[in-house]
Amino acid sequence: MAATDDEHDSRPTAPTHGERLTIDAAMRRALDLARERPVHGANPRVGCVILGHGSPVDGEVPPTTVAAAPAVFAPNGELVGAVGTVLAEGRNHGAGTPHAEVVALEDAASRGADVRGATAVVTLEPCHHTGRTGPCSVALAEAGVGRVVFAVPDPNPVAVGGAAHLESTGIDVVGDVRRCEGEEVLGAWLRAVRRGRPWVTLKTATTLDGRVAAVDGTSRWITGPESRAHAHGVRAFVDAIAVGTGTVLADDPALTARVGNERSGAPDQPLRVVVGHRDVPEDARVRGPEGALLHLRTHDVHEVLGALHAREVRHLLVEGGPTVAAAFLRAGVVDEVHAYVAPVLLGAGAHATADLGIGTIADAVRLTTTQVRTLGQDVLVVAHPQTATEED
Amino acid sequence: MAATDDEHDSRPTAPTHGERLTIDAAMRRALDLARERPVHGANPRVGCVILGHGSPVDGEVPPTTVAAAPAVFAPNGELVGAVGTVLAEGRNHGAGTPHAEVVALEDAASRGADVRGATAVVTLEPCHHTGRTGPCSVALAEAGVGRVVFAVPDPNPVAVGGAAHLESTGIDVVGDVRRCEGEEVLGAWLRAVRRGRPWVTLKTATTLDGRVAAVDGTSRWITGPESRAHAHGVRAFVDAIAVGTGTVLADDPALTARVGNERSGAPDQPLRVVVGHRDVPEDARVRGPEGALLHLRTHDVHEVLGALHAREVRHLLVEGGPTVAAAFLRAGVVDEVHAYVAPVLLGAGAHATADLGIGTIADAVRLTTTQVRTLGQDVLVVAHPQTATEED
Ligand SMILES: NC(=O)c1ccc[n+]([C@@H]2O[C@H](COP(=O)([O-])OP(=O)(O)OC[C@H]3O[C@@H](n4cnc5c(N)ncnc54)[C@H](OP(=O)(O)O)[C@@H]3O)[C@@H](O)[C@H]2O)c1
Ligand SMILES: NC(=O)c1ccc[n+]([C@@H]2O[C@H](COP(=O)([O-])OP(=O)(O)OC[C@H]3O[C@@H](n4cnc5c(N)ncnc54)[C@H](OP(=O)(O)O)[C@@H]3O)[C@@H](O)[C@H]2O)c1
Repeated sequence: MAATDDEHDSRPTAPTHGERLTIDAAMRRALDLARERPVHGANPRVGCVILGHGSPVDGEVPPTTVAAAPAVFAPNGELVGAVGTVLAEGRNHGAGTPHAEVVALEDAASRGADVRGATAVVTLEPCHHTGRTGPCSVALAEAGVGRVVFAVPDPNPVAVGGAAHLESTGIDVVGDVRRCEGEEVLGAWLRAVRRGRPWVTLKTATTLDGRVAAVDGTSRWITGPESRAHAHGVRAFVDAIAVGTGTVLADDPALTARVGNERSGAPDQPLRVVVGHRDVPEDARVRGPEGALLHLRTHDVHEVLGALHAREVRHLLVEGGPTVAAAFLRAGVVDEVHAYVAPVLLGAGAHATADLGIGTIADAVRLTTTQVRTLGQDVLVVAHPQTATEED
Repeated sequence: MAATDDEHDSRPTAPTHGERLTIDAAMRRALDLARERPVHGANPRVGCVILGHGSPVDGEVPPTTVAAAPAVFAPNGELVGAVGTVLAEGRNHGAGTPHAEVVALEDAASRGADVRGATAVVTLEPCHHTGRTGPCSVALAEAGVGRVVFAVPDPNPVAVGGAAHLESTGIDVVGDVRRCEGEEVLGAWLRAVRRGRPWVTLKTATTLDGRVAAVDGTSRWITGPESRAHAHGVRAFVDAIAVGTGTVLADDPALTARVGNERSGAPDQPLRVVVGHRDVPEDARVRGPEGALLHLRTHDVHEVLGALHAREVRHLLVEGGPTVAAAFLRAGVVDEVHAYVAPVLLGAGAHATADLGIGTIADAVRLTTTQVRTLGQDVLVVAHPQTATEED
């Protein structure tokens, strides 16, 4: 259920316009759309497919199709076997961009397709609030769709009510279709909204003996180019990256996402967060034009998370250094660890994490490994604290 | 070319008695026999197949077979295409057990097979010295074989001369058949004999932040049962295991190989080596009846290796602690690192290796990863120092 690397890797797939799909197959397609990369910012990853029922036979539910439909997670097995023709598709591209339903309605309009009476299949319950975009519930109702099928109910207290509004306008609404997969795709976003704080990924990049820098403070490079490229992919995927003032003063990192040698523009860049009382130098690279900077003059991890949640940061990547990593671990708010381990030995130097107050092996922070991946000479271990897993 | 885990895993395969094989295929079979597990102690891993040429047609070299024979590394392509019937097979089972050639001759005798004029196909040049067993060169000559084909010339200064002796008795001798694969199977043993010192594998078992123990010294368990089982498999595979007096006094390890819950008998157990001036307590588990103990009261790594080489230790596993690990690394004699990394964080405690005198990242010990393996929750990284690879 975690933000795994396979998710980071999802690349666009072929559109399905004109294909005849069951509602269930359309939901699978919408889920694929939701998985597509890249996407940035605070918005959930959502996909939408609009199925037309132009010919009378389209609307019918052929019993054989229903019987044959595999792995149907819908409350209404008959319905999800119903067939239609794909009129339009859409997915959201990140914060400040239109929602998937709006993109799909625009796609239909641009193709001259008539969506009246059609079925909108969408991975998340259409929103019902006016944020950066208008409410999708209203847009769908105004377009005249006849039915809305969604996977996951909206957990967002300010957006909820989409299904109710649609039903009040006489539209047929069915939820929980392939909900399990829908929750998987929403990943960190869903848990962040439910818990009211960002999902926290802690990144470490260490030698085999757990060092993050040599005695003289040099740390470029411990890991190889494949690991660094992967880490940039993760940066492109999160909403914010945090480091302590110590790392800013020692390493002067830019904290930007560079994917395939290209640095994407400011709206696509994660928010850069520096934690600690000391000033961030005027010429620090973290102040560069590629993205916004938030300097939080506090040592209180919960204050950091509160401030970021208020800014709609749903996924926070903590990149260190050891003091800040330890603070997040001690606060018990690390949901996922990305440990890049390089085949290097140093024998001395700074550690991945400062003292955690653990005195004996029985008190160790035990994680569950969910993924192991070879990246050139290095290994990436993705692991989750056992408490965090139980929490959800 | 290293002792990889796939080698540790080799299990017996079906015998080939009565099959008609080319000499080349017989060598492949002999190599498979040499790879079989378990084997212990200082002896090289050798396999032998005896091919009979009972019917006249057997001795012929069918030109089509020769032409079709794939991946022939022999100097004499015609010869290795020659066909015979498998009369006998043999492999050695470790120190103190008969050599592969003797086992194969006994196998033939027990089956009543006539080996006069036959071809003995063996992965290593037959020895010519009287060690724990008599010289194989003499045994083969006395048995009346007509031809000896081997893969790798004997690098052992005291055993060499087998081929010359066989030729002097009128036997046809051909070497270097599939030599490359033969060298691979001989692995650590071959390099140890050539260099006059054991092949050294350094094992570490750490947390993600590079700790081998908590602040109070507790370290049971950092890694999970799968890693520990794997480590016991490696112990069963080496000739000796070394730790420092510090580890003996702190952890009181038994240093025995337990494979599948069974502890094998004394002759199968690796030699236990303790390095350091302090006494090993009378009741230390390392003095247990399962194997021999060698206490080397020195801090000189080269003295340790010299003493072990003299005892025919060809593969040494260094299991720590940090002081001894650092001493071996600083001496530049670590040929291979087995790093078990567990998804655990401690934030404090002893390190995998003590100070290596490295001050800056450019001087880090850089290794080349040759294998990454998931073991339950843990990861095993097998890596080789870049200098050791160049050396061979
Ligand atoms: N290889 C890697 O992956 C990697 C990554 C990052 C860093 N590093 C290395 O780590 C070293 C820097 O270590 P560091 O520990 O100084 O870095 P840090 O954790 O980035 O910064 C520590 C500073 O952050 C502030 N801070 C914020 N929250 C805090 C809290 N809850 N408790 C205490 N202080 C808090 C404090 O500064 P104020 O006084 O300003 O409040 C503290 O001194 C450098 O050598 C760098 O190269 C390596
Ligand atoms: N998790 C793991 O994989 C693992 C494995 C092993 C150990 N450990 C932990 O490591 C800790 C023990 O650390 P340690 O460093 O004391 O263990 P150590 O390396 O086993 O022993 C160090 C001692 O060995 C002797 N020695 C041998 N060669 C030396 C040399 N070249 N230079 C200096 N001394 C040499 C010295 O003792 P003399 O005074 O007797 O000469 C020295 O004090 C324990 O907490 C143990 O649990 C963990």
